[in-house]
Formats: sequence, C-alpha cells, structure tokens
Amino acid sequence: MCQLLGMNCNVPTDICFSFRGFSARGGGTDVHADGFGIAFFEGRGCRVFLDPQPARESRVAELVRRVPMRSTNVVAHVRKATQGAVAIENCHPFQRELWGRYWAFAHNGNLERLPPPPGRYYRPVGATDSEAAFCHLLEALRARFPDGKPPLPALHAALAARTRELAALGPFNYLLCDGEHLFAHASTRLHFIVRQAPFGPAHLVDEDLTWTSPSTPRPRTAWP
Amino acid sequence: MCQLLGMNCNVPTDICFSFRGFSARGGGTDVHADGFGIAFFEGRGCRVFLDPQPARESRVAELVRRVPMRSTNVVAHVRKATQGAVAIENCHPFQRELWGRYWAFAHNGNLERLPPPPGRYYRPVGATDSEAAFCHLLEALRARFPDGKPPLPALHAALAARTRELAALGPFNYLLCDGEHLFAHASTRLHFIVRQAPFGPAHLVDEDLTWTSPSTPRPRTAWP
Repeated sequence: MCQLLGMNCNVPTDICFSFRGFSARGGGTDVHADGFGIAFFEGRGCRVFLDPQPARESRVAELVRRVPMRSTNVVAHVRKATQGAVAIENCHPFQRELWGRYWAFAHNGNLERLPPPPGRYYRPVGATDSEAAFCHLLEALRARFPDGKPPLPALHAALAARTRELAALGPFNYLLCDGEHLFAHASTRLHFIVRQAPFGPAHLVDEDLTWTSPSTPRPRTAWP
Repeated sequence: MCQLLGMNCNVPTDICFSFRGFSARGGGTDVHADGFGIAFFEGRGCRVFLDPQPARESRVAELVRRVPMRSTNVVAHVRKATQGAVAIENCHPFQRELWGRYWAFAHNGNLERLPPPPGRYYRPVGATDSEAAFCHLLEALRARFPDGKPPLPALHAALAARTRELAALGPFNYLLCDGEHLFAHASTRLHFIVRQAPFGPAHLVDEDLTWTSPSTPRPRTAWP
C-alpha cells in the first residue's frame, strides 16, 4: 500500500513544510520506501517529480523539500509496492492528457482482478493496478464527454459512478487532479483539513518541526 | 528558437557532464533563458524535469547537473520563446502515451500557420507550435498503426512522411523518443557524435571542463 498527500489552494502555495513530514514516511518514520512522486500544477502546466528511491533518501525529494514551488494543486505519493516492481514507470502520480489538460492520479489501495482498460484512448505503461485504474477512469470520462470538460456536477457524477465500480474490487483511495479541480475518493482512511487565515502554528506529526505564519513572530528554528 | 540535446546509449549512462555545458546556454553562455526540460528514459519509465526558470539559475537544472541519473535515452531542451508564454506548460520536452509507451518530444524551430491537430487522441495543453506539432505526429502514427507499435522501418516511414509535411511550415529540428528508439530530424543545424570505448578525454565548448574516462588517470579538477 502507499500514502497520499494532496493540497488545493486559492493562491499558489508551496508544500515544503507538509512534504517534509510526508516524505519522512518514505523509509524514515514509515515503510513506504519503494519510490515517491509529486505533481505540481501551475496554471495549465503540470510538472511531476518521480524517483524510485525512498523519499527519505532521494535527492529529488530533497529538492522538493528545499525549493518552494508555488502551486494551487499538488498530488503527492510515497509507495509501498503491492503490484508492479520498484521502477520509475510504477511511481505515482501518473499523468495523462484529457480535454487539453493534464491529469495526475495517485492511489492508495489494491484492486484485485482489475481487467485491462479498453485502451481506446489510454493504455498503462507500467504494471500497477493503480495506473490501470487511472486509465479506466479517463476512458470512462472521455467516452461520456468526448468533446471537452463538462460542468463540474456532470463530471463529478460520471467520475463517482465509475469510481464505485472500481472500488468494488478493493481499497481505492485516490487523488485525481487536472489543475482546476482536485478530486479525492476515500474507501478506507483519508483525512482532510481546511486551513484559512489567520493561520495558527502547524506542527508535523512525523518530525519535531513547527511552522508559524510570517504574520506572527517566527522562531528562528522553525523553518530554514 | 531553442536548443536541443539528445543521448542514446547501449548501457545506462548519466548525462551530467554534457548537460552542464548545455544548461549554461540557458541564460549563461547563450540566450535560451525561457525555461528548460529534460526527459530520462529508464526501462519503460520516463521522468521529465521541467522549470520555467533559466537553466543557468534553476535549482531543478542544478539537480540534473549534480545527481547522476543513468538512462539509455535522454531528450533535453533549453527554451528561447517564440510562440507561447514563459510557463511550465510551454516547456519542452512534452510527454504523451502512445501504444502503452511514453513518448517525449523537444523542438527547435518555428512552424508558421500550423493548423490545430485533429485532437482525436491528442490535444495540446500549452500554446506552442512545438506541442501542436508533437500532437500532429502522434495522431498520424496512431491513425496509421492503431493496434500497437509497428516494426521500425514502417514506423520510420510514417514518421518521415508526416515530418516532411510539417517541415514545409518552417524550421523543424526535433528529438522524439519512446525509450526504445530516439528519432532526430534536422531542418537546419543538428549535429551528432558517436562515442565508443576506449573513450578519450572530452572537453566542453561552453565551459573549461574536461572529462577523462575512469580507465585513464583522471585530473582532480576535471569532475567533482
């Protein structure tokens, strides 16, 4: 299984602080040491950083912890392999284009006996059930709305219907994002928090690190 | 316009040395300061590092210069914007999936009056002629070979035919790769070198840096 971290903001925000604690779970405070990935949406653009190394040790993850990349939508993943070898092509988030937008997808769970996606538009490259499920979702959306992205309620209804079918095959916690909307589905445990101004201090559960808003006095040790 | 760097190897090789000189052209020794990108193919997997910052200053480019990522096929690009704003979605290489493999594409040139691609399978996300041309190429290949990747001679012939049509619209130097094959097209200036054992010393044209093979005595100053 794996772990997921998503962020959806009204203004571009960096995720260095949260990713610091999250990436510690990639071989440090937890066992998800089979690679990591993170997708940053910036306008219509999307860049995905991937590494099959444990996030705790990865030089790519170190970059993500240290260099603020401001984004309105982020999807991150640390991997504990169930299906598929430890390799770049099996690192989440996976990325495809649909309706002239990039979509990124990361999954926690294990779908048993998932049939191959129809492959009319999307085929998996790697060997994970997760990437296959992503292709299933995009195929369904594209078949239902061939011309372009529909209004959100229609999109949500179609996505929810196909998600229910896939979730019948096993745990299916996922984050799916096109840079405009971030969809989260919880089969088992998925938590969310809404943070808004005025921001109080935040403390990582994985490391002894506290972040205090720049608008309040900031201890020198809190954030380099 | 932009500049291109590609590498195709029989064993996984890092590109740190060559990329060091190449990335200097992104705002240092040359004017291509509107972003950069590099795609590394590792087995079936592909990871793309992008930054709209000048490669000379980019922390992402610094990672690529410093951390050896061994790959059999690499496509790199430093951008001097002609069409499309300086933004992530307009950074090359662009990436799409075709026949269950990732394809990466980077372009030097400027295609005038390029019609939008048919969009049956692939639509551009950004605003460059380059990404549109990439979509045109993939649409043509997919339409010609809907079931899967054909033998190389047939693939090459179909690609060459569509390339000739697009190259009639302007300079069209490109690198296109699916991790198995690296295709290069030269409209104007594109150079290649074949290096094989025993390797002699290599000297960058952009910086005073020499690389000497580990099999021969290596000056301390050559490579950190």
